Amino acid sequence: MALNITQQLIKSHLVSGEMNPGEEIGLRIDQTLTQDATGTLVMLELEAMGLERAKTEASAQYVDHNLIQEDSKNPDDHLFLESASKRFGLYYSRPGNGVSHPVHMQRLAKPGKTLLGSDSHTCANGCMGMLAMGAGGIDVALAIAGEPFYVKMPKVWGIKLTGKLPDWVSAKDVILELLRRHDVKGGVGKVIEYYGPGLDELSAMDRHVIANMGAELGATGTVFPSDKEIKRFLKEQGREKDWVELKADKGASYDIDEEINLSELVPLIAKPTSPGNVVPVSEIAGTPIYQSYIGSSANPGYRDFAVAAEIVKGRRVADGVSFDINPTSRQMLTDLVKESHIASLLQAGARLHQAGCNGCIGMGQAPATGRNSLRTTPRNFPGRSGTKEDSVFLCSPETAAASALTGKITDPRTLDFAYPEVKDPKKPTIDVNLLDHPLPLEEAKKTNIVKGPNIASIPEMDEMPDELALPVLLKMGDNISTDEILAGGARVLPYRSNLPEISKFTFEIVDDTYYKRAKETVEQTGHAVIGGFNYGQGSSREHAALAPRYLGLKIALVKDFARIHWQNLVNFGILPLTFVNESDYDLLEQGDVLKVTGLRNKVKQGGAFSLTVQGKNIDIKVMQALSERQKEIMLKGGIINWAKERST
Amino acid sequence: MALNITQQLIKSHLVSGEMNPGEEIGLRIDQTLTQDATGTLVMLELEAMGLERAKTEASAQYVDHNLIQEDSKNPDDHLFLESASKRFGLYYSRPGNGVSHPVHMQRLAKPGKTLLGSDSHTCANGCMGMLAMGAGGIDVALAIAGEPFYVKMPKVWGIKLTGKLPDWVSAKDVILELLRRHDVKGGVGKVIEYYGPGLDELSAMDRHVIANMGAELGATGTVFPSDKEIKRFLKEQGREKDWVELKADKGASYDIDEEINLSELVPLIAKPTSPGNVVPVSEIAGTPIYQSYIGSSANPGYRDFAVAAEIVKGRRVADGVSFDINPTSRQMLTDLVKESHIASLLQAGARLHQAGCNGCIGMGQAPATGRNSLRTTPRNFPGRSGTKEDSVFLCSPETAAASALTGKITDPRTLDFAYPEVKDPKKPTIDVNLLDHPLPLEEAKKTNIVKGPNIASIPEMDEMPDELALPVLLKMGDNISTDEILAGGARVLPYRSNLPEISKFTFEIVDDTYYKRAKETVEQTGHAVIGGFNYGQGSSREHAALAPRYLGLKIALVKDFARIHWQNLVNFGILPLTFVNESDYDLLEQGDVLKVTGLRNKVKQGGAFSLTVQGKNIDIKVMQALSERQKEIMLKGGIINWAKERST
Repeated sequence: MALNITQQLIKSHLVSGEMNPGEEIGLRIDQTLTQDATGTLVMLELEAMGLERAKTEASAQYVDHNLIQEDSKNPDDHLFLESASKRFGLYYSRPGNGVSHPVHMQRLAKPGKTLLGSDSHTCANGCMGMLAMGAGGIDVALAIAGEPFYVKMPKVWGIKLTGKLPDWVSAKDVILELLRRHDVKGGVGKVIEYYGPGLDELSAMDRHVIANMGAELGATGTVFPSDKEIKRFLKEQGREKDWVELKADKGASYDIDEEINLSELVPLIAKPTSPGNVVPVSEIAGTPIYQSYIGSSANPGYRDFAVAAEIVKGRRVADGVSFDINPTSRQMLTDLVKESHIASLLQAGARLHQAGCNGCIGMGQAPATGRNSLRTTPRNFPGRSGTKEDSVFLCSPETAAASALTGKITDPRTLDFAYPEVKDPKKPTIDVNLLDHPLPLEEAKKTNIVKGPNIASIPEMDEMPDELALPVLLKMGDNISTDEILAGGARVLPYRSNLPEISKFTFEIVDDTYYKRAKETVEQTGHAVIGGFNYGQGSSREHAALAPRYLGLKIALVKDFARIHWQNLVNFGILPLTFVNESDYDLLEQGDVLKVTGLRNKVKQGGAFSLTVQGKNIDIKVMQALSERQKEIMLKGGIINWAKERST
Repeated sequence: MALNITQQLIKSHLVSGEMNPGEEIGLRIDQTLTQDATGTLVMLELEAMGLERAKTEASAQYVDHNLIQEDSKNPDDHLFLESASKRFGLYYSRPGNGVSHPVHMQRLAKPGKTLLGSDSHTCANGCMGMLAMGAGGIDVALAIAGEPFYVKMPKVWGIKLTGKLPDWVSAKDVILELLRRHDVKGGVGKVIEYYGPGLDELSAMDRHVIANMGAELGATGTVFPSDKEIKRFLKEQGREKDWVELKADKGASYDIDEEINLSELVPLIAKPTSPGNVVPVSEIAGTPIYQSYIGSSANPGYRDFAVAAEIVKGRRVADGVSFDINPTSRQMLTDLVKESHIASLLQAGARLHQAGCNGCIGMGQAPATGRNSLRTTPRNFPGRSGTKEDSVFLCSPETAAASALTGKITDPRTLDFAYPEVKDPKKPTIDVNLLDHPLPLEEAKKTNIVKGPNIASIPEMDEMPDELALPVLLKMGDNISTDEILAGGARVLPYRSNLPEISKFTFEIVDDTYYKRAKETVEQTGHAVIGGFNYGQGSSREHAALAPRYLGLKIALVKDFARIHWQNLVNFGILPLTFVNESDYDLLEQGDVLKVTGLRNKVKQGGAFSLTVQGKNIDIKVMQALSERQKEIMLKGGIINWAKERST
């Protein structure tokens, strides 16, 4: 059968399941990527698993998110990640190297490989002919430990690119056009595969821009062919040997077909507060702006900065505009410096920031209250900039630079000069030391993992017991989100590497006595919580399962679960149960004690069983819905114990 | 009489007092400088005074401290400062322009003038032949409003420089040598004046380095002559017309004489946790480092970065070293970019940060726990870096760069290559738009001051009443510091532009019920507090007087006052009284009500008077010690009211 590139990549990495869209498949993972905001927990999980050494072809730990260092927590995390990388045989990218996605592309990405990353924009490396996907931290930890990644077989959405981008229109406008057409859920359950003659006009980094924001469409991944342009890019990076050709089989087809004629595109912009809220720039031209922001993994290329530099060169940004330049890698910044683009930007009035994610993930550069910010970043969700009720617009570097000059949202085609031509640097810098390379095994084994005072190992967790008598500590209503289970934000997040500390915030929003009451159950019986419909909706954060588990939660009994939190509960050894009769929810109250015996056998058998409510003379019929693999994980007391056994 | 330069500067600006060391003199102020951390309150004070327009020759508002912008408070402050600068006819330096002191030197400093700044390193501009002094915000506000600055006539400490700096030794080592000899109190009550043949070897920016850290000696100011080097510097900045020669009269003498032979100096370093804790670098060579930090107003020159760049050029910083480069102005960064120095730094592994104060004042770049940080900054007080129990060393760029290469504290003379020669940029950049110029009066008057939600005007304050009956809300012991009166730190400081909000923290450390109890007195009687010896020691922060005043504090009755807080109390209309009989302290308790009638006359007359303790049948004899000017201020209800009347 003729396969498209996505299907080829899946087929060559398939370890379980059938390639029927919607069915779960297991994929072998060749490379992983972690960043510092999610990586600390991944490293603690690897430690708890007792991993000897990464089993992937290449795993890299980047430090790009938490670069501000207002106190010792961030730099302590950096040292921890550096030492853990050495210990487990990972590449380590130090602060200042740049954003994970472009740096990974420059130094490690290889056509034909799979990449799993604990960052939702991991899909960006699909530009290199990889199957690159974002996932939760524990999934990446397991991949590093050599386990497959399980995902539903996606539909493949083929997008044929024709024509040639007009002047003043660039790659960002291509992905904004797709968001305009299909909004932020348009890609769910799909891999987007680009092909066609229009590709010839898009450089590897242009493709990165397009692949990166596949995340905003909700896509499982984005795949580009590995063609002569990818060969050129790898050669420029001194890695021509890593190139293999990758193209769809003759006669291959797609589950969904679409076409974009690049010649017809115009400068587009996503209005607040969704990346899917896209209109032509011309439609809102004239709106005053406070900030013009260049950078992020959504416009990380040399070209993206150079074109902005050429636009403002010899001119000056409008009074009152904060023109924030955020280089995406040290290597690229060096080239931008050497080719005089940084001088042009500075002389036009730029604020030049360190290489990293920075304001894209709310680390500084927040706009003033009630003012408009134009950014080349991928997301404009409410408050993401750090400012409450912010007003962030997403656009191309051309639109951002043009608007910086005028102080108003400006269609760059209305500027009174010609579209500048940007050439690649004459002799591109290759910073071969950009990544610290994995240590040899014997040296790695001798490395001590360095833990600052805020970094605590994940405590060992017991196997699932056979008999339980659990007091119900909370009875909650419908739609409890993971934010209510364990909040995010600047107050809580600094403790992401410290389970005992972060657990103090558990269910704080629901009931601030929970922590104290739960803590008392840890050495005794453990406890249960009761919830309604859609329990655990929202963010995929793992701490929302790990922290209650640490505090003794053994069973969450609800009307139904949100998918990811349900998986996380299993992963961290909390038995997720649903009421067989939803009306039983009304029979239970806080303080009831739920009893069960012979639990291990009940889990092994699967299906429904009963919990007895002590002293009330009632039984509650409950249902479990675990796969065979999940049953094993539950019985072992969670995925860390399960993986520990497999890796030894 | 033959005058030294300091005396000339004082004489030409003297408006009151005699030039006898220790006596209070009033000085006309030609220029002022405010930065954003202190400037917001200054602007609110100007607003409360009803100032029409700055009466100085040049006043500039810089934004260099709060550049991180994690939420809207900082950018809202920036817009507020920009609009207030426009309204009052100030220069405004936008975020990204750089650190106040070097930018002021480049664009506004003029030999022969006085400069008052609400930043302790304002003395840096003494390098330009100015009498440049740091002061509290209200002093600077008054200077902007045309009032003299009152200070004790300093002794003049003449330091003759001879010889020539050896290779690998630079200006920083000169001021470290002085700190080694005299420690951090060595300059109190003195202006340091440099002269002698050694000056020929020191550029204007080298002199800036030396003048800047006069603050660390506790000096009132530092003065350099205005010679041909200053002429050269001003010419380079396109301001040759601003040059006047300034040299000591023939036969002039100094109150104190000292000599430094530059040829004998060696690389020096201040160990944790005081700038006075100075030893030769060789003495602690080999100590491992985590961070090497270049930048700040203590080493702001093109040369300081260029020499570091030449040292690391073609080499790579040691693994694990965070090599943080903090440019001090956009203009200089542009030259460093053009002359390839930034490329050298980046290729050696530097993290390049935005132009500003940054880590020098704890805004990011905190070192990891228990690790050593080498910095070219002026201060290493405990915790200033942001990290608790930090270990910060102060040194020259040569020492910092050499140590970055080896990963250990390194005497740069031990490197195995020759001392690099650094040339000035071939065609230095002049960013004439670096500062927004004052608006013409009519346009200025039409400017609306922009206030974000966190910025609140200073409420109007009543005249001093003639009759008081004040409940005592707090009785405190000895040595109450301004930190206990109103804390600093990240929790409190974001409210520095918002008196109603920041006042909620008043006396919180002493008694967290104070705020609520005090607030209740505002519309009624007001209240008093009782203290012991050394009341109000520590930081000079004005909020420690302004906030309690806002909450109704009318009288502070103590055994004795720390000097600056005493002045601040007067300035904000709180009557500072001391016990005539210290044992009366024991007679009073919280809840007592202190009564006085005919108070306005008593203040006018000065000296001792009595307070009656209601219901206790006792009188407490108290003393005031106000100058005639201070009496006027008290009667008007504080210096803002007083200045308002004078300016209208």
